[in-house]
Amino acid sequence: MAKKIGVLTSGGDAPGMNAAVRAVCRAALQRGMEVVGIQRGYNGLLNGEVFEMNARSVSGIIQRGGTCLYTARCPEFRNKEGVAKGRDKCKELGLDGIVVIGGDGSFRGAADLSAMGIPCIGLPGTIDNDISCTEYTIGYDTAMNTAMEMIDKIKDTAQSHDRCSVVEVMGRNAGYIAINVGLAVGAEAVITPEEDYDIDAICEKIKNTIKNGKNHFVVVVAEGVGKTDEITKIISEKTGVETRATILGHVQRGGSPTVRDRVVATQMGYHAVELLEKGIGNRVVGMKDNKVYDVDIQEALSMKKPFEDELYKILNETAF
Amino acid sequence: MAKKIGVLTSGGDAPGMNAAVRAVCRAALQRGMEVVGIQRGYNGLLNGEVFEMNARSVSGIIQRGGTCLYTARCPEFRNKEGVAKGRDKCKELGLDGIVVIGGDGSFRGAADLSAMGIPCIGLPGTIDNDISCTEYTIGYDTAMNTAMEMIDKIKDTAQSHDRCSVVEVMGRNAGYIAINVGLAVGAEAVITPEEDYDIDAICEKIKNTIKNGKNHFVVVVAEGVGKTDEITKIISEKTGVETRATILGHVQRGGSPTVRDRVVATQMGYHAVELLEKGIGNRVVGMKDNKVYDVDIQEALSMKKPFEDELYKILNETAF
Amino acid sequence: MAKKIGVLTSGGDAPGMNAAVRAVCRAALQRGMEVVGIQRGYNGLLNGEVFEMNARSVSGIIQRGGTCLYTARCPEFRNKEGVAKGRDKCKELGLDGIVVIGGDGSFRGAADLSAMGIPCIGLPGTIDNDISCTEYTIGYDTAMNTAMEMIDKIKDTAQSHDRCSVVEVMGRNAGYIAINVGLAVGAEAVITPEEDYDIDAICEKIKNTIKNGKNHFVVVVAEGVGKTDEITKIISEKTGVETRATILGHVQRGGSPTVRDRVVATQMGYHAVELLEKGIGNRVVGMKDNKVYDVDIQEALSMKKPFEDELYKILNETAF
Amino acid sequence: MAKKIGVLTSGGDAPGMNAAVRAVCRAALQRGMEVVGIQRGYNGLLNGEVFEMNARSVSGIIQRGGTCLYTARCPEFRNKEGVAKGRDKCKELGLDGIVVIGGDGSFRGAADLSAMGIPCIGLPGTIDNDISCTEYTIGYDTAMNTAMEMIDKIKDTAQSHDRCSVVEVMGRNAGYIAINVGLAVGAEAVITPEEDYDIDAICEKIKNTIKNGKNHFVVVVAEGVGKTDEITKIISEKTGVETRATILGHVQRGGSPTVRDRVVATQMGYHAVELLEKGIGNRVVGMKDNKVYDVDIQEALSMKKPFEDELYKILNETAF
Repeated sequence: MAKKIGVLTSGGDAPGMNAAVRAVCRAALQRGMEVVGIQRGYNGLLNGEVFEMNARSVSGIIQRGGTCLYTARCPEFRNKEGVAKGRDKCKELGLDGIVVIGGDGSFRGAADLSAMGIPCIGLPGTIDNDISCTEYTIGYDTAMNTAMEMIDKIKDTAQSHDRCSVVEVMGRNAGYIAINVGLAVGAEAVITPEEDYDIDAICEKIKNTIKNGKNHFVVVVAEGVGKTDEITKIISEKTGVETRATILGHVQRGGSPTVRDRVVATQMGYHAVELLEKGIGNRVVGMKDNKVYDVDIQEALSMKKPFEDELYKILNETAF
Repeated sequence: MAKKIGVLTSGGDAPGMNAAVRAVCRAALQRGMEVVGIQRGYNGLLNGEVFEMNARSVSGIIQRGGTCLYTARCPEFRNKEGVAKGRDKCKELGLDGIVVIGGDGSFRGAADLSAMGIPCIGLPGTIDNDISCTEYTIGYDTAMNTAMEMIDKIKDTAQSHDRCSVVEVMGRNAGYIAINVGLAVGAEAVITPEEDYDIDAICEKIKNTIKNGKNHFVVVVAEGVGKTDEITKIISEKTGVETRATILGHVQRGGSPTVRDRVVATQMGYHAVELLEKGIGNRVVGMKDNKVYDVDIQEALSMKKPFEDELYKILNETAF
Repeated sequence: MAKKIGVLTSGGDAPGMNAAVRAVCRAALQRGMEVVGIQRGYNGLLNGEVFEMNARSVSGIIQRGGTCLYTARCPEFRNKEGVAKGRDKCKELGLDGIVVIGGDGSFRGAADLSAMGIPCIGLPGTIDNDISCTEYTIGYDTAMNTAMEMIDKIKDTAQSHDRCSVVEVMGRNAGYIAINVGLAVGAEAVITPEEDYDIDAICEKIKNTIKNGKNHFVVVVAEGVGKTDEITKIISEKTGVETRATILGHVQRGGSPTVRDRVVATQMGYHAVELLEKGIGNRVVGMKDNKVYDVDIQEALSMKKPFEDELYKILNETAF
Repeated sequence: MAKKIGVLTSGGDAPGMNAAVRAVCRAALQRGMEVVGIQRGYNGLLNGEVFEMNARSVSGIIQRGGTCLYTARCPEFRNKEGVAKGRDKCKELGLDGIVVIGGDGSFRGAADLSAMGIPCIGLPGTIDNDISCTEYTIGYDTAMNTAMEMIDKIKDTAQSHDRCSVVEVMGRNAGYIAINVGLAVGAEAVITPEEDYDIDAICEKIKNTIKNGKNHFVVVVAEGVGKTDEITKIISEKTGVETRATILGHVQRGGSPTVRDRVVATQMGYHAVELLEKGIGNRVVGMKDNKVYDVDIQEALSMKKPFEDELYKILNETAF
């Protein structure tokens, strides 16, 4: 039974992390626990960048992008000595458990620390939705909406000039953002790392759509594909349509979180505290069939996540 | 096997209806069917407000709020004669099926028309999420985000003036928007038709939170509760905090749909065409466990939907 | 030559006040002055709700709505004793001058305090643009854009249902927000306190526009007119169009400020410090011919501001 | 006295062009003129891509980005033969005048066509604000707000990771967007084509600000500077702060126009019709001292516009 817990954010920041931190802090205080904010991920644990939290420590943050606890990489935490030092720091601080908000790399650290006797709960925080044990990651919905709103604007100018816009969206090695956003903006084609693509077929489709009376086009490319400029050049050459590339970039990581990100982050943060309160660690909290659940970290890390092939099919049969 | 189908929107409009219309139109054209747009719901069917659609009929609508097919009530369609007249009109137009985007009332019409030999598929389109057979209705996500963004702004001024804001959100007789938005904005209390509320407890909570160092408050009230002004007055009197009511109103029904509304609407529209193509009617398409499914209309209309009690508990333990 | 100055916000809050506070603080620190933040307007001056500011005191506020210094009414400051007490407090705190961000009422206090020996500079902060000595007030542009975006959404649903929407916008006794926003959303009519209106002519116009092929309408009413429900009822009766009223309310006061509000607020705050540095008080900073200028407070308070009649004419000749 | 006029958009598209087209169309119809929409700029005039407009031709466009008349370059119109062909087309179509919405290049064509007997009025439409005869160009305010909102989001993630973000904004060879947006987001430095910059001084400032307690930074670079990657690399090396570049790109050209862009575009379009009605051509409409005015095209093209040096000074003294 935890009496004092810590919370940290690790890896890339994501909108909704603050909502999760707030839920962890408040739910723990409500249960009579003490809560410690750990700044800059595992780094801050090792360096003692920590502070006692009260209810007001998390006031006014639920609507903010980024993470009020900051985040940083911590190579030191990838080896045993680093984790052991982390465990010692926890003992020193009197921490009976930690909530770690981040991605797979952060969960590995959480598993290692759990194994050394400090129960840790991982929450999936990344805009990329590339965590296998969960349908949904904190920040994913906001990033998709940000990307969509930007592409809606790009479409205004593409349409005015009869152009094709090739837009690179984030997602690291995953195409979840790309396929959903592509569907949402009515893109003619979406290219992701998960699926082979046929650039000739895409160019043919564009040419057929011109015959169909349409003169502007959007092609969404996931950053993991890594060939945005090349794709742009080929489309321009093969279709004769003036084609421009835009890389949406870091804008997608920030901004005030959507309802979904705030609500799911709050549910997950709350559930993490429920687990730690019972002394349970080494779990990741996720969404399955639209419900919050938890799973063993090792199991979580070895899971495979199917890609959304159905959305491809729908996109191909509705965008023309 | 349908060769020619119609599509209409009925009841209150909702963001994402256009995405559904687009998906129905394009998926049907792709399969070699003809598609007829029916304007102003069942009314337009009876009055012959119809037009042949092609791929360009639905260009540039996926990002628009409202419904490009317009919507209207149709009391005539509530009795047998009206439905029979609708069936005759379908025969006249050569329609082998209709996709009806709307709420429970619209589905009743769809069931009646199906029973008379015109297969109809219902899609849940309403911002209120008050349709029992589905976890999710088209427009719900956009409405929640619109309400949330407005309350975020109200909080700026409430905080500057040390006030309590009582905000009425939409949802007809349901509190789904209220509880989710309330959680998302960090409201101190949410009042819905589904749950009893204790105004004294709410006032006590506000007074305790003042001791805790907080001077501004938000209380979200679902429109179905119907007592926003009364609640505002009581809170003002019992807490001594200057309290103002805001009714967010019809703004919540409009606006460009979110990614989620566009994607789900597209999936549902696509699925409806798959059903009609096989000659299947009298079904409602919904979301269950985060997946698109379909269910018999009568069964759909008799289902009960559990309320999100868990969110209440989380709100009460994290907002203070 | 001021060595230590204070800054306060007073009256209704407005987006951009924070940008002004930041500019005052930073420009003063840059010149080697000390800066004191005074909370809750003149009230906070009298009660000693003050704190020493450094460069970080205003970090991250330029993009926030509301005022980080809070605001409140202060009836005590309307009489001589209150002002004298304020002067004594300034002496006690060592303040050589104060920047007062607010409306006409706040400027009167600033004039009285200046007369007692504490140079004060007024900055026009109100969403209503109802300050005579300036073309532009801090918060005006944000409030107009917020109102416009809300009405754009209302138009989606009005169009879907063939309705007329009567929308009440803020502006206290002035119609600046109403006429500009009405023009921006393509409203068929705008009703302001400054101009007589002919409800019959408005209804005629709506009926003529129906003949012209348009079925949805927007009428914008300034809050100072005070008859929104009555107007709604008359339009409904005389035109036969289903007509709904929406009162946009306090949402218009909040939200992240626009570029214009941030830039103008920063320019004005900077100019206020330039004046105080030279020992100049009893001035209001305003915009004239699109440039920052300053004027004697008494003169400012006695000025008359012409209304934007030209916009009326343009609206009447372009909205149909 | 014009009886029939045309309207076209030329050069890069800008938000608010549609509002201008609408005002031209409606104001002309209101005066009893006929109006012809010319698609794809001077190109469409030469190719006969024209259509008769009525009041409904411009319904629902005031809130849309881009231009409903499309735009294109027209090299043919740069020589006498092209302009003569344009004049003949005008005669053929019965056009007594044309409103040309675009930039300096478009105004040259308008002057040439005016000289050949077809009175033309130029309206300044470009996001870059780089037209000398006017304080303000249609699209400028929207582009600045879009850029600002994107940088606000980038700041969330820069702050979470203690990074410096170098952000390239549009503006062609001008730095108006850069300096205003930089001021609005609280950037530590802004680099424009108009002003020399000292990269060492910028790096020193960043290092000093770190001592001051700030760990994240924004540097805004105008596209006309053309060295965004180089600047990013130098800042990273000299300050030791992790530094990332983002090029905002074409997103800045699109999106629903702000109140200011809609209102100014409407005023300018209206004024253009007033001029043509009187048979006056060869004028550009602009803003001077915040008021709409008009000026001879040749004079307009030879004017010099002062840069906003004052804003530089303010930025340097408030961002630290």
